[in-house]
Amino acid sequence: MYYSYEDFLKDLMILKDKVEKQIGIPDALVCIARGGMTMSHMLGLAWNIRAVYSLNAISYSDHKVQSSLILENMPVIKKEHKKILILDEIIDSGNSASVVMQKLRSSFPESSFSIGVIFQKPNAKIVADYFVREAGEWIDFFWEVDMLNRASND
Amino acid sequence: MYYSYEDFLKDLMILKDKVEKQIGIPDALVCIARGGMTMSHMLGLAWNIRAVYSLNAISYSDHKVQSSLILENMPVIKKEHKKILILDEIIDSGNSASVVMQKLRSSFPESSFSIGVIFQKPNAKIVADYFVREAGEWIDFFWEVDMLNRASND
Repeated sequence: MYYSYEDFLKDLMILKDKVEKQIGIPDALVCIARGGMTMSHMLGLAWNIRAVYSLNAISYSDHKVQSSLILENMPVIKKEHKKILILDEIIDSGNSASVVMQKLRSSFPESSFSIGVIFQKPNAKIVADYFVREAGEWIDFFWEVDMLNRASND
Repeated sequence: MYYSYEDFLKDLMILKDKVEKQIGIPDALVCIARGGMTMSHMLGLAWNIRAVYSLNAISYSDHKVQSSLILENMPVIKKEHKKILILDEIIDSGNSASVVMQKLRSSFPESSFSIGVIFQKPNAKIVADYFVREAGEWIDFFWEVDMLNRASND
Protein backbone atom coordinates (compact mmCIF):
# COMPACT_ATOMS: atom_id res chain seq x y z
CA MET A 1 0.00 0.00 0.00
CA TYR A 2 1.26 3.44 -0.97
CA TYR A 3 0.89 5.93 1.88
CA SER A 4 0.78 9.41 0.39
CA TYR A 5 1.57 12.84 1.77
CA GLU A 6 -2.14 13.69 1.47
CA ASP A 7 -3.14 10.65 3.55
CA PHE A 8 -0.48 11.59 6.08
CA LEU A 9 -1.82 15.15 6.45
CA LYS A 10 -5.30 13.82 7.20
CA ASP A 11 -4.00 11.26 9.66
CA LEU A 12 -1.76 13.74 11.40
CA MET A 13 -4.78 15.94 12.09
CA ILE A 14 -6.57 12.95 13.61
CA LEU A 15 -3.55 12.07 15.73
CA LYS A 16 -3.24 15.69 16.86
CA ASP A 17 -6.89 15.77 17.94
CA LYS A 18 -6.60 12.49 19.83
CA VAL A 19 -3.58 13.73 21.77
CA GLU A 20 -5.17 17.11 22.55
CA LYS A 21 -8.37 15.49 23.82
CA GLN A 22 -6.38 13.33 26.22
CA ILE A 23 -3.48 15.46 27.47
CA GLY A 24 -3.79 18.84 25.73
CA ILE A 25 -0.70 20.16 23.96
CA PRO A 26 2.45 18.27 24.98
CA ASP A 27 5.42 20.13 26.45
CA ALA A 28 7.97 18.31 24.30
CA LEU A 29 8.12 15.82 21.45
CA VAL A 30 10.63 12.98 21.17
CA CYS A 31 10.80 11.25 17.82
CA ILE A 32 12.36 7.92 17.11
CA ALA A 33 14.64 8.50 14.12
CA ARG A 34 14.22 8.16 11.33
CA GLY A 35 10.55 7.17 11.05
CA GLY A 36 9.10 9.76 13.42
CA MET A 37 10.98 12.76 12.09
CA THR A 38 8.58 14.24 9.55
CA MET A 39 5.57 13.93 11.85
CA SER A 40 7.51 15.49 14.72
CA HIS A 41 8.57 18.35 12.51
CA MET A 42 5.00 19.10 11.46
CA LEU A 43 3.39 18.55 14.85
CA GLY A 44 6.10 20.64 16.49
CA LEU A 45 5.16 23.53 14.23
CA ALA A 46 1.39 22.97 14.52
CA TRP A 47 1.64 22.98 18.33
CA ASN A 48 4.33 25.68 18.40
CA ILE A 49 6.66 23.44 20.40
CA ARG A 50 10.38 24.19 20.12
CA ALA A 51 11.35 21.26 22.33
CA VAL A 52 11.33 18.72 19.49
CA TYR A 53 13.98 16.05 20.06
CA SER A 54 15.05 12.85 18.41
CA LEU A 55 16.80 9.70 19.47
CA ASN A 56 18.24 6.73 17.63
CA ALA A 57 17.11 3.18 18.34
CA ILE A 58 19.29 0.81 16.40
CA SER A 59 18.80 -2.92 16.51
CA TYR A 60 21.89 -5.00 16.08
CA SER A 61 21.04 -8.47 14.86
CA ASP A 62 23.57 -11.02 15.92
CA HIS A 63 23.59 -14.79 15.78
CA LYS A 64 21.63 -15.18 18.98
CA VAL A 65 17.88 -15.51 19.06
CA GLN A 66 17.12 -11.99 20.29
CA SER A 67 18.52 -8.97 18.53
CA SER A 68 19.59 -6.22 20.88
CA LEU A 69 18.48 -2.65 20.69
CA ILE A 70 20.87 0.21 21.40
CA LEU A 71 19.54 3.68 22.17
CA GLU A 72 21.78 6.58 21.23
CA ASN A 73 21.54 10.34 21.61
CA MET A 74 18.90 10.29 24.30
CA PRO A 75 17.56 13.84 24.65
CA VAL A 76 17.62 15.73 27.93
CA ILE A 77 14.08 16.33 29.14
CA LYS A 78 13.76 19.56 31.11
CA LYS A 79 12.22 19.52 34.58
CA GLU A 80 9.49 21.95 33.56
CA HIS A 81 8.37 19.66 30.75
CA LYS A 82 5.79 17.31 32.22
CA LYS A 83 3.86 15.91 29.26
CA ILE A 84 6.14 14.30 26.70
CA LEU A 85 4.85 12.72 23.50
CA ILE A 86 7.03 10.10 21.81
CA LEU A 87 6.41 9.81 18.07
CA ASP A 88 7.09 7.08 15.56
CA GLU A 89 5.46 6.23 12.26
CA ILE A 90 4.51 2.68 13.24
CA ILE A 91 4.47 0.25 16.10
CA ASP A 92 5.54 -2.92 14.37
CA SER A 93 6.92 -5.51 16.79
CA GLY A 94 6.76 -2.92 19.57
CA ASN A 95 10.34 -3.69 20.61
CA SER A 96 11.89 -0.30 20.06
CA ALA A 97 8.86 1.58 21.39
CA SER A 98 8.85 -0.37 24.64
CA VAL A 99 12.60 0.00 25.20
CA VAL A 100 12.41 3.73 24.46
CA MET A 101 9.47 4.18 26.85
CA GLN A 102 11.18 2.28 29.67
CA LYS A 103 14.42 4.18 29.27
CA LEU A 104 12.79 7.62 29.15
CA ARG A 105 10.50 6.86 32.11
CA SER A 106 13.37 5.67 34.28
CA SER A 107 15.65 8.54 33.25
CA PHE A 108 13.06 11.29 33.75
CA PRO A 109 10.66 10.07 36.43
CA GLU A 110 9.12 13.51 36.95
CA SER A 111 7.69 13.63 33.43
CA SER A 112 4.90 11.54 31.98
CA PHE A 113 5.43 9.87 28.63
CA SER A 114 2.93 8.68 26.07
CA ILE A 115 3.44 7.45 22.54
CA GLY A 116 1.68 8.37 19.33
CA VAL A 117 1.99 6.65 15.95
CA ILE A 118 0.16 6.58 12.65
CA PHE A 119 0.09 2.78 12.24
CA GLN A 120 -0.38 0.12 14.88
CA LYS A 121 0.35 -3.53 14.12
CA PRO A 122 -2.27 -5.78 15.77
CA ASN A 123 0.19 -8.29 17.23
CA ALA A 124 2.75 -5.84 18.59
CA LYS A 125 3.83 -6.26 22.20
CA ILE A 126 2.57 -2.76 23.08
CA VAL A 127 -0.26 -0.61 21.83
CA ALA A 128 0.34 3.10 21.32
CA ASP A 129 -1.57 5.55 23.51
CA TYR A 130 -2.64 7.24 20.28
CA PHE A 131 -2.76 5.70 16.83
CA VAL A 132 -4.73 6.36 13.66
CA ARG A 133 -4.74 3.15 11.60
CA GLU A 134 -4.23 -0.54 12.02
CA ALA A 135 -1.33 -1.72 9.90
CA GLY A 136 -2.10 -4.69 7.72
CA GLU A 137 -0.14 -5.06 4.53
CA TRP A 138 3.26 -3.61 3.69
CA ILE A 139 3.32 0.20 3.70
CA ASP A 140 5.30 2.29 1.23
CA PHE A 141 5.61 5.59 3.05
CA PHE A 142 5.82 8.67 0.84
CA TRP A 143 9.00 9.77 2.60
CA GLU A 144 10.62 6.51 1.60
CA VAL A 145 9.47 6.11 -2.01
CA ASP A 146 8.66 9.54 -3.47
CA MET A 147 12.29 10.52 -4.01
CA LEU A 148 13.13 7.18 -5.58
CA ASN A 149 10.08 7.30 -7.84
CA ARG A 150 10.94 10.81 -8.93
CA ALA A 151 14.52 9.78 -9.66
CA SER A 152 13.43 6.81 -11.78
CA ASN A 153 10.87 8.92 -13.69
CA ASP A 154 13.38 11.62 -14.67
CA MET B 1 5.65 32.31 -1.58
CA TYR B 2 4.14 28.89 -0.94
CA TYR B 3 6.76 26.15 -0.99
CA SER B 4 5.02 22.88 -1.81
CA TYR B 5 5.88 19.27 -1.14
CA GLU B 6 6.31 18.79 -4.90
CA ASP B 7 8.83 21.65 -5.12
CA PHE B 8 10.63 20.21 -2.14
CA LEU B 9 10.96 16.77 -3.75
CA LYS B 10 12.54 18.31 -6.85
CA ASP B 11 14.90 20.46 -4.80
CA LEU B 12 15.90 17.61 -2.54
CA MET B 13 17.01 15.61 -5.58
CA ILE B 14 19.12 18.57 -6.69
CA LEU B 15 20.64 18.94 -3.23
CA LYS B 16 21.33 15.21 -3.10
CA ASP B 17 23.16 15.33 -6.45
CA LYS B 18 25.24 18.33 -5.41
CA VAL B 19 26.36 16.63 -2.22
CA GLU B 20 27.16 13.35 -3.99
CA LYS B 21 29.23 15.09 -6.66
CA GLN B 22 31.34 16.77 -3.99
CA ILE B 23 31.73 14.26 -1.16
CA GLY B 24 29.79 11.15 -2.18
CA ILE B 25 27.31 9.77 0.31
CA PRO B 26 27.80 11.25 3.80
CA ASP B 27 28.43 8.97 6.78
CA ALA B 28 25.96 10.77 9.02
CA LEU B 29 23.38 13.55 8.88
CA VAL B 30 22.82 16.15 11.59
CA CYS B 31 19.69 18.22 11.26
CA ILE B 32 18.98 21.45 12.99
CA ALA B 33 15.53 21.03 14.55
CA ARG B 34 12.94 21.72 13.62
CA GLY B 35 13.55 23.07 10.10
CA GLY B 36 15.91 20.36 8.88
CA MET B 37 13.95 17.36 10.12
CA THR B 38 11.85 16.39 7.10
CA MET B 39 14.75 16.71 4.67
CA SER B 40 17.00 14.67 6.97
CA HIS B 41 14.36 11.99 7.24
CA MET B 42 14.03 11.68 3.47
CA LEU B 43 17.73 11.99 2.64
CA GLY B 44 18.57 9.49 5.38
CA LEU B 45 16.30 6.97 3.67
CA ALA B 46 17.43 7.82 0.14
CA TRP B 47 21.09 7.38 1.14
CA ASN B 48 20.34 4.46 3.46
CA ILE B 49 21.99 6.24 6.40
CA ARG B 50 20.86 5.20 9.87
CA ALA B 51 23.05 7.77 11.59
CA VAL B 52 20.53 10.60 11.29
CA TYR B 53 20.76 12.94 14.27
CA SER B 54 19.21 16.20 15.34
CA LEU B 55 20.17 19.04 17.61
CA ASN B 56 18.34 22.05 18.96
CA ALA B 57 19.60 25.58 18.40
CA ILE B 58 17.47 27.96 20.37
CA SER B 59 18.02 31.70 20.33
CA TYR B 60 17.13 33.52 23.48
CA SER B 61 16.46 37.18 22.81
CA ASP B 62 17.18 39.34 25.81
CA HIS B 63 17.37 43.07 26.25
CA LYS B 64 20.97 43.28 25.07
CA VAL B 65 21.93 43.96 21.49
CA GLN B 66 22.91 40.40 20.56
CA SER B 67 20.63 37.48 21.16
CA SER B 68 22.40 34.39 22.37
CA LEU B 69 22.12 30.97 20.85
CA ILE B 70 22.05 27.87 23.00
CA LEU B 71 22.78 24.47 21.48
CA GLU B 72 21.11 21.50 23.15
CA ASN B 73 21.19 17.76 22.57
CA MET B 74 24.39 17.74 20.56
CA PRO B 75 24.69 14.31 18.93
CA VAL B 76 27.70 12.06 19.44
CA ILE B 77 29.57 11.65 16.16
CA LYS B 78 31.26 8.27 15.89
CA LYS B 79 34.96 8.06 15.10
CA GLU B 80 34.33 6.02 11.97
CA HIS B 81 32.02 8.70 10.57
CA LYS B 82 34.23 11.08 8.63
CA LYS B 83 31.88 12.97 6.32
CA ILE B 84 29.05 14.65 8.18
CA LEU B 85 26.35 16.67 6.47
CA ILE B 86 24.48 19.25 8.52
CA LEU B 87 20.99 20.01 7.20
CA ASP B 88 18.66 22.93 7.66
CA GLU B 89 15.87 24.30 5.50
CA ILE B 90 17.34 27.79 5.14
CA ILE B 91 20.36 29.88 5.97
CA ASP B 92 18.74 33.11 7.00
CA SER B 93 21.03 35.29 9.12
CA GLY B 94 23.52 32.43 9.24
CA ASN B 95 23.86 32.76 13.02
CA SER B 96 22.68 29.32 14.04
CA ALA B 97 24.46 27.56 11.15
CA SER B 98 27.79 29.16 12.01
CA VAL B 99 27.51 28.39 15.74
CA VAL B 100 26.49 24.79 15.00
CA MET B 101 29.40 24.33 12.56
CA GLN B 102 31.96 25.75 15.01
CA LYS B 103 30.71 23.64 17.87
CA LEU B 104 30.63 20.39 15.87
CA ARG B 105 34.07 21.01 14.34
CA SER B 106 35.66 21.71 17.70
CA SER B 107 33.92 18.77 19.39
CA PHE B 108 34.71 16.24 16.65
CA PRO B 109 37.97 17.36 15.01
CA GLU B 110 38.46 14.03 13.23
CA SER B 111 35.33 14.41 11.12
CA SER B 112 34.71 16.89 8.34
CA PHE B 113 31.47 18.87 8.37
CA SER B 114 29.63 20.57 5.55
CA ILE B 115 26.19 22.13 5.48
CA GLY B 116 23.36 21.75 3.00
CA VAL B 117 20.15 23.79 2.81
CA ILE B 118 17.33 24.38 0.38
CA PHE B 119 17.28 28.17 0.65
CA GLN B 120 20.21 30.57 1.03
CA LYS B 121 19.64 34.22 1.98
CA PRO B 122 22.01 36.47 0.02
CA ASN B 123 23.13 38.58 2.98
CA ALA B 124 23.69 35.80 5.48
CA LYS B 125 27.01 35.69 7.30
CA ILE B 126 27.81 32.26 5.87
CA VAL B 127 27.00 30.52 2.60
CA ALA B 128 26.05 26.84 2.70
CA ASP B 129 28.36 24.37 1.01
CA TYR B 130 25.28 23.13 -0.86
CA PHE B 131 22.10 25.04 -1.51
CA VAL B 132 19.37 24.92 -4.15
CA ARG B 133 17.67 28.32 -4.22
CA GLU B 134 18.30 31.91 -3.23
CA ALA B 135 15.71 33.03 -0.70
CA GLY B 136 14.02 36.27 -1.58
CA GLU B 137 10.54 36.81 -0.26
CA TRP B 138 8.89 35.17 2.71
CA ILE B 139 8.54 31.40 2.37
CA ASP B 140 5.53 29.43 3.57
CA PHE B 141 6.93 25.92 3.87
CA PHE B 142 4.46 23.11 3.29
CA TRP B 143 5.40 21.53 6.62
CA GLU B 144 4.38 24.73 8.34
CA VAL B 145 1.15 25.64 6.55
CA ASP B 146 -0.42 22.49 5.09
CA MET B 147 -1.84 21.25 8.40
CA LEU B 148 -3.22 24.67 9.27
CA ASN B 149 -4.78 25.06 5.83
CA ARG B 150 -6.33 21.64 6.04
CA ALA B 151 -7.73 22.42 9.48
CA SER B 152 -9.31 25.67 8.34
CA ASN B 153 -10.80 24.04 5.22
CA ASP B 154 -12.51 21.26 7.14
